[in-house]
Amino acid sequence: MKILVSNIGSTSFKYRLYAMPEETLLARGGVERIGAENSRSYVIRDGETTEKVAPVPDHGEALSACFGQLTDPETGCLKEAGEIAAIGFKSVHAKGVSGVQLVDEKVLEAMEAFAKVAPAHNPPYVKAMRQLKSAYPELPLVAAFETGFHQTVPRANRTYAIPYEWMTDLGVERWGFHGASHRYIAGRIAELTGGKAKRVISCHLGGSSSICAIENGKSVGASMGMSPQSGLPNNNRVGDLDVFALPAILEGTDKSLEEVLDVLANQSGLLGISGVGNDLREIEEAAAGGNERATLAIDVFVESIRDYLGSYLVRLGGLDALVFTGGIGENSSVIRERVCRGLDGFGIVLDASTNESFKGEGRLSPELSATEVWVVPTNEEIIVARQSYERLTAKD
Amino acid sequence: MKILVSNIGSTSFKYRLYAMPEETLLARGGVERIGAENSRSYVIRDGETTEKVAPVPDHGEALSACFGQLTDPETGCLKEAGEIAAIGFKSVHAKGVSGVQLVDEKVLEAMEAFAKVAPAHNPPYVKAMRQLKSAYPELPLVAAFETGFHQTVPRANRTYAIPYEWMTDLGVERWGFHGASHRYIAGRIAELTGGKAKRVISCHLGGSSSICAIENGKSVGASMGMSPQSGLPNNNRVGDLDVFALPAILEGTDKSLEEVLDVLANQSGLLGISGVGNDLREIEEAAAGGNERATLAIDVFVESIRDYLGSYLVRLGGLDALVFTGGIGENSSVIRERVCRGLDGFGIVLDASTNESFKGEGRLSPELSATEVWVVPTNEEIIVARQSYERLTAKD
Repeated sequence: MKILVSNIGSTSFKYRLYAMPEETLLARGGVERIGAENSRSYVIRDGETTEKVAPVPDHGEALSACFGQLTDPETGCLKEAGEIAAIGFKSVHAKGVSGVQLVDEKVLEAMEAFAKVAPAHNPPYVKAMRQLKSAYPELPLVAAFETGFHQTVPRANRTYAIPYEWMTDLGVERWGFHGASHRYIAGRIAELTGGKAKRVISCHLGGSSSICAIENGKSVGASMGMSPQSGLPNNNRVGDLDVFALPAILEGTDKSLEEVLDVLANQSGLLGISGVGNDLREIEEAAAGGNERATLAIDVFVESIRDYLGSYLVRLGGLDALVFTGGIGENSSVIRERVCRGLDGFGIVLDASTNESFKGEGRLSPELSATEVWVVPTNEEIIVARQSYERLTAKD
Repeated sequence: MKILVSNIGSTSFKYRLYAMPEETLLARGGVERIGAENSRSYVIRDGETTEKVAPVPDHGEALSACFGQLTDPETGCLKEAGEIAAIGFKSVHAKGVSGVQLVDEKVLEAMEAFAKVAPAHNPPYVKAMRQLKSAYPELPLVAAFETGFHQTVPRANRTYAIPYEWMTDLGVERWGFHGASHRYIAGRIAELTGGKAKRVISCHLGGSSSICAIENGKSVGASMGMSPQSGLPNNNRVGDLDVFALPAILEGTDKSLEEVLDVLANQSGLLGISGVGNDLREIEEAAAGGNERATLAIDVFVESIRDYLGSYLVRLGGLDALVFTGGIGENSSVIRERVCRGLDGFGIVLDASTNESFKGEGRLSPELSATEVWVVPTNEEIIVARQSYERLTAKD
């Protein structure tokens, strides 16, 4: 069975095509600059890239362009688009809906109901899904929600101290996100440690960042709460913020609530503190050049990670493995070093020279470290492919 | 020098009268039901209470009533009200102002500017202070801000990931509160351990609750952030909540932002989750009777405490003393036991039988516990008396 796992941006469509259950990656590709005159469609097979520049007006047409490339006798790997059994999505949030779902009108409406809760994610997904359904009404779309992995978080750790009905009726609770990534890490670290790591903290650090506490393979805590704007500071999203900062911000800026939330979702995070940009590498460069706000942004990021690390250390009652993943987690030896600094009293030790030059997947801790420290490149797409395959082959 | 330390409620005025710097408590008293026909003025000296029921229309008149009782030859301890050098206040929050301040129009306006940030505290304080100033224009009022003790928290731990100017211009940062209580604990635990406890976590648990990380006597972390509604769940105030829960709450309830913030400040916390009441003892009773929401409220409270405990354990790099104070911290053996449960791996052990029946001030941990666990009844008034005395006698 062939499953296309897609990643939606407001003007982009990226995919990986898998043969399942073999988990063979057949091709990857996508379309950039959707809606522009010079949209770029590309497919990569066996390391060879084929591309075409031509207008692609929307996501439905983007999928057609990709199907064209995948079935082209020269560049493709399919005889016909009909070989694709489904498209899987790493979808983010929906009111009253989690887990793995076949996308129908009810699911789309549930995602729309939380459009303002996940403003960077839900609107482009819903729009693209509607265009795809309209262009290919027979092709199943499978939504693997990012909240799904965290449904095992105990009720007491999910609950905000708000009127009870706001939780039960309005869905206001700590949902947690990055579920595909943390689920992958939970499975992979079990393999890598031969099942020894029962208590794991997964640090997904990247454009958006979150931390997950994992016990016996199951999530028992997630740093993102009701929305993907909470928890750690993200590249341009705010992370944790006191709700009662709003009166001071509203009065001080003369902005509407909607405008303030927009700033919190798009111009805050590492960008907001640093004023430099939303890529940690730029910020690290600016900090090295003496930019104090850039230095502060990095310090705030590291301290926020350590705060959650401490909470989860206590929640798990100790730690067998600490895993770094995501663009920053996999590539920034500086952030990894700073997160682990001075934690030898808790049994967490990083081998400095291994850490500094590390690439790929492997262990960064010396033998004496009670907690194994790992870098594990994440693979969210294979999780969505697996979940979509399971959903499609499940006996209802 | 005699200093009256006062505690303002919207319809109450309570005080303790100290001789300073001897720290002798001369009397305590106050007025209840201000504005009603049957206001009750009382004074307690040497264990004897004298009271009077008569209308007291406002806080200015309340002070006059108290002065009357304090200078009454039979019940009082003063020849004339003029002996009182100042009134000290445990004031909460002000825009751009912290530390210890002589109350003038500028300070009052700074408190008014944060009226909506601290809605339960600032409005009654400002109103009462204005009435007192009008009634006794020559009497100095000293505001010892609850945020003052936390000004040593490192910048990286104070900073939200918001646009930098919102911090510098609008004062949006993690201020921390309960400063008088945590300052008292910091000093007292140093005395009690002969200066051995360098790394301390102070858990002030009561009607409102917060946790403070203390290193060498100075605050390096506070669970309350921009406002006293953040951090741990309080009796009826919300504690930490994702700002992006607001769109879901606003749409789901049809309330205005102002109304939602009012619910978060008055009908949330342990009351909101449990639906039972805002006193932990009532909630514990309901939980014992099988009320699931009451059980959940207690579980959420305990888990929130443990989350901050873990963060501060990592921030301090280990812990010499864990201190419980406040109405719940001093009296609830159950909460103390649950907070410490399973933390022996971190060197925190509670002696179960000592804990269960403990009253007063003392150590709850056995010799083997690397971290000393203490109950220390707080004394916020003596801190305000000291700070007021220091402010009045300081050479500018």
